[in-house]
Amino acid sequence: MYKLKNIISQALIFNSLFALGITEATAAGANVGLATVANQTVEANGIKFSFRSFGKKTGTPIVFLQHFTGTMDYWDPAVIDGLAKSHQVIVFNNTGMGHTTGKVADSIDQMTKDANAFINALGYKQVDLVGFSMGGFIAQELAAAHPDKIRKLVLVGTSNKGGGDHLLKVLGEAFAQANIDPRQYLFFTQTANSQAAAKEFIARSSTRKDRDPEISKEDMNSHAKALITWANTPDPEFSLLKSIKQPVLVVQGSNDTMLDTANSIAMYQNLTNAQLVLYPDSGHGSLFQYPADFVSKVANFLN
Amino acid sequence: MYKLKNIISQALIFNSLFALGITEATAAGANVGLATVANQTVEANGIKFSFRSFGKKTGTPIVFLQHFTGTMDYWDPAVIDGLAKSHQVIVFNNTGMGHTTGKVADSIDQMTKDANAFINALGYKQVDLVGFSMGGFIAQELAAAHPDKIRKLVLVGTSNKGGGDHLLKVLGEAFAQANIDPRQYLFFTQTANSQAAAKEFIARSSTRKDRDPEISKEDMNSHAKALITWANTPDPEFSLLKSIKQPVLVVQGSNDTMLDTANSIAMYQNLTNAQLVLYPDSGHGSLFQYPADFVSKVANFLN
Repeated sequence: MYKLKNIISQALIFNSLFALGITEATAAGANVGLATVANQTVEANGIKFSFRSFGKKTGTPIVFLQHFTGTMDYWDPAVIDGLAKSHQVIVFNNTGMGHTTGKVADSIDQMTKDANAFINALGYKQVDLVGFSMGGFIAQELAAAHPDKIRKLVLVGTSNKGGGDHLLKVLGEAFAQANIDPRQYLFFTQTANSQAAAKEFIARSSTRKDRDPEISKEDMNSHAKALITWANTPDPEFSLLKSIKQPVLVVQGSNDTMLDTANSIAMYQNLTNAQLVLYPDSGHGSLFQYPADFVSKVANFLN
Repeated sequence: MYKLKNIISQALIFNSLFALGITEATAAGANVGLATVANQTVEANGIKFSFRSFGKKTGTPIVFLQHFTGTMDYWDPAVIDGLAKSHQVIVFNNTGMGHTTGKVADSIDQMTKDANAFINALGYKQVDLVGFSMGGFIAQELAAAHPDKIRKLVLVGTSNKGGGDHLLKVLGEAFAQANIDPRQYLFFTQTANSQAAAKEFIARSSTRKDRDPEISKEDMNSHAKALITWANTPDPEFSLLKSIKQPVLVVQGSNDTMLDTANSIAMYQNLTNAQLVLYPDSGHGSLFQYPADFVSKVANFLN
């Protein structure tokens, strides 16, 4: 139905290319940050969640929700460490990812329940969310289901429910690019500036020594099913968006070919209280192309 | 042709309501700022331009271009003084406005030439621009005509050339609101939050003791002609926007009824290098509703 077989065979190449990047890892900096802070573990519902938490201990903590196939190491240290200067930042691997135990879920609904259990296990009564791509799907579901627990949310490079029509086509095109990290194709545009930013991002996100284990073939299959199902579940009245009453910052690149930039405009228009930021000359990963600006905007929005 | 007579008779009420606000002025603060700094004069092309200039003397100075009928006192001290913390800020009255000599122009083209003469007279080789509403029209023309002189520009609550279809209708509705400052109707939405912000803005912008003289009936006529003519001059291929190569920050409210919010999206899409920010629950004057956030975004964009 969703040509999942094609996606997975292509995704395996994706995965092996991700692994290539890892072998190019350089020494991590001495300061505490995403690439250096020790992994921690917290248990909830029989799952041992692997996470990293650091930063300024004031205000509302920020929980980050990751993209398709990504572990904690797929975040940009420039973004996470930048926000850690003003907030407690928490990145984690959801069920079955990295060192987190359990079986990777094949639905956004289950991922949302697991993320909620993780947040509860940390003992936080209220958090802010930054959800990127598939993580933005989970962030929307969490915000709608837990209006008191989720104070504000940032939705970046993501889409409304049912907005992912181009996903299969573009993933196929990305995986057809030989010998480059697919993030360089999907997260950035083909201009010289954007491609230079891509290389800087990939270098920044490749410095950790004890990186999380990569996703398996089976788990990638589950991720793909969850992603594609949610993105193709019709919600023509935007009822999920309309049920979210919290303040939302919607951020998107000018040329996101995976999840249409136009969807971010629709999200802004259908959310109760949203601010929209669209960056120039950028693809799916605009937060990784403009990390300093993104950090500034998110910090301002959350303060 | 443009029902100018109607506009002007309505605009006179607009003008007298502006004057009402002035009688409510309170004592200005002790620190140097928009409401307290002394007016200066510089001469160019036989015109004596009245202006105020203050702030940090590093980096590229910011020149502000004002809206329909507005003098220097119609800026928000929270915006101007906020940006003065990191930049030299320059507000001025274009030809014939406030204490500036000469005859108010009735075309954006002439206003652009006069603004350029003013900038030259200050001796600046390069400046950044913040153009609000009609000031954004002038900013676009200046940036296109002087690519070396104009480094970056911020276009807020404004429109592409030919984008002002709703202008007459909405001005009429605004002027039909009895006993309120039309800015409260045009620059903000009708929600409690936005209306509260409107009152705070009008209070902030009413503190100067030696306010600029208000615009005359004749000069308002010229302003209206310039505004409406430019906003209704077709540019279906966005050739003016496409000729602007400088980085642009486009900022707009969610519900600008004077100059459609959709036009700001079109500007973002047709400019070579633009970032778009759309605020929630806001009208034409989003920069006055969210001054601290606006200052932060502009300062980041210009740095």
